[in-house]
Amino acid sequence: MTLPQDIPSSAEDYMDSQTHSNRPISSILIIIAMQTEALPLVEKFQLSEDHNSVFPKEVPWVRYHGMYKDLQINLIWPGKDSALGVDSVGTISASLVTYASIQALQPDLIINAGTAGGFKAKGASIGDVFLVSECAFHDRRIPIPVFDLYGVGLKQALKTPNLLAGLDLKVGKLSTGDSLDMSVQDEASIIANDATVKDMEGAAVAYVADMFKVPAIFVKAVTDIVDGEKPTAEEFLQNLATVSAALDEAVTQVIHFISGKCIHEL
Amino acid sequence: MTLPQDIPSSAEDYMDSQTHSNRPISSILIIIAMQTEALPLVEKFQLSEDHNSVFPKEVPWVRYHGMYKDLQINLIWPGKDSALGVDSVGTISASLVTYASIQALQPDLIINAGTAGGFKAKGASIGDVFLVSECAFHDRRIPIPVFDLYGVGLKQALKTPNLLAGLDLKVGKLSTGDSLDMSVQDEASIIANDATVKDMEGAAVAYVADMFKVPAIFVKAVTDIVDGEKPTAEEFLQNLATVSAALDEAVTQVIHFISGKCIHEL
Repeated sequence: MTLPQDIPSSAEDYMDSQTHSNRPISSILIIIAMQTEALPLVEKFQLSEDHNSVFPKEVPWVRYHGMYKDLQINLIWPGKDSALGVDSVGTISASLVTYASIQALQPDLIINAGTAGGFKAKGASIGDVFLVSECAFHDRRIPIPVFDLYGVGLKQALKTPNLLAGLDLKVGKLSTGDSLDMSVQDEASIIANDATVKDMEGAAVAYVADMFKVPAIFVKAVTDIVDGEKPTAEEFLQNLATVSAALDEAVTQVIHFISGKCIHEL
Repeated sequence: MTLPQDIPSSAEDYMDSQTHSNRPISSILIIIAMQTEALPLVEKFQLSEDHNSVFPKEVPWVRYHGMYKDLQINLIWPGKDSALGVDSVGTISASLVTYASIQALQPDLIINAGTAGGFKAKGASIGDVFLVSECAFHDRRIPIPVFDLYGVGLKQALKTPNLLAGLDLKVGKLSTGDSLDMSVQDEASIIANDATVKDMEGAAVAYVADMFKVPAIFVKAVTDIVDGEKPTAEEFLQNLATVSAALDEAVTQVIHFISGKCIHEL
């Protein structure tokens, strides 16, 4: 094989991506922030909880694992905050579990699945499931040249035209921030990010995945309409269980589709 | 030794803290987000850059290390963003390097040092150096009971009455967020946090340090007055170099003070 001279990435990256793409995906890492979102998948794929953890004993992160056909599935839920007992949502926990899981499990592909707010002005409705094209942050405003771009932290999701054609999912851009609500500044940044869905983890998972050049996809199901009438928290809690079912159905279809395929076939 | 029956923490934590406190601190981990803030300390303590890194090869994080008397110093700077070339500031990088450094280096004490915005209404002036009493977040608004407290993420710094009496530092609460500027919502949360200084890393370092029960202190030097006339970014850049010198002088004094002492003597 001769390397083209004008490819933008390094020759090493190119070789790596070629190596990866020529064998079927053997290990996937699913990152899900909330237990309510995670448990139906744990049941469906009969995943076992890991009691001899790959993580340090001090962290609340939970690993569920099992096989689907030839595919090794690791589903990581960041667990309950040890002091407060609520799900460890948000970008810090998401980045930490992504980092530690990549180190421990060397996955071929990351799937970040979760619920999200959707913008009806961009075509989102309650219960819609989106496959994300790109992720960015909306609450990291650093108005100094270049630092501003670092703050936005735009990362591309893996391009998966065949997956998209095979499944009944919508496509949209994702904007991530650590608040469930949306301030005026958040809204301006979300509009600048051209986002259809808004979550609290995606761009953090994307940041760490990109560091290690692990391909990542993002499956986000809409629990609440951000530009609608109802208060976000109320609508989110009201729809969490039913929309989690739609999310899990979509993730199940994604896993079925992935099984036996190479990265470049997605 | 008999354990008192009514101590609030677990017996194991109590034993751990007793074990730690009865021997001199032997290893400190200094976390500094910006190269401009870090390099004067690297020079002053003649720290060497680690070329056989304790971190994965893919991350930009830089470890400087050396000895001061019997104290092993590790100074971690999250490095330049590989795509954009700016310092990897903010809570995600800070939490990742704190996690990876605790795993690799098992420090007795963490010092997070950096520049910060200060509130003149709370007594801060340009060049002041603060020792932080507690940290919280101001940009993680989750208006659901208990999740709201998780978002605020209040953590106590190690109590260091002797260090404080020995050094000429002010004391104040720290509020952390991923934006250099301050929105109306940020301001309300910062006031609710009763903060005198505002940074972009502290509460993230505190979150991970608390997970592993590593004592942490926070030294923050004021580059800009948030409730003043001048735009934050302009004032920050104008004062960064000179205030970094004041910060490094304070951290040097802290290291001199720590040397030879146990945690409970700080």
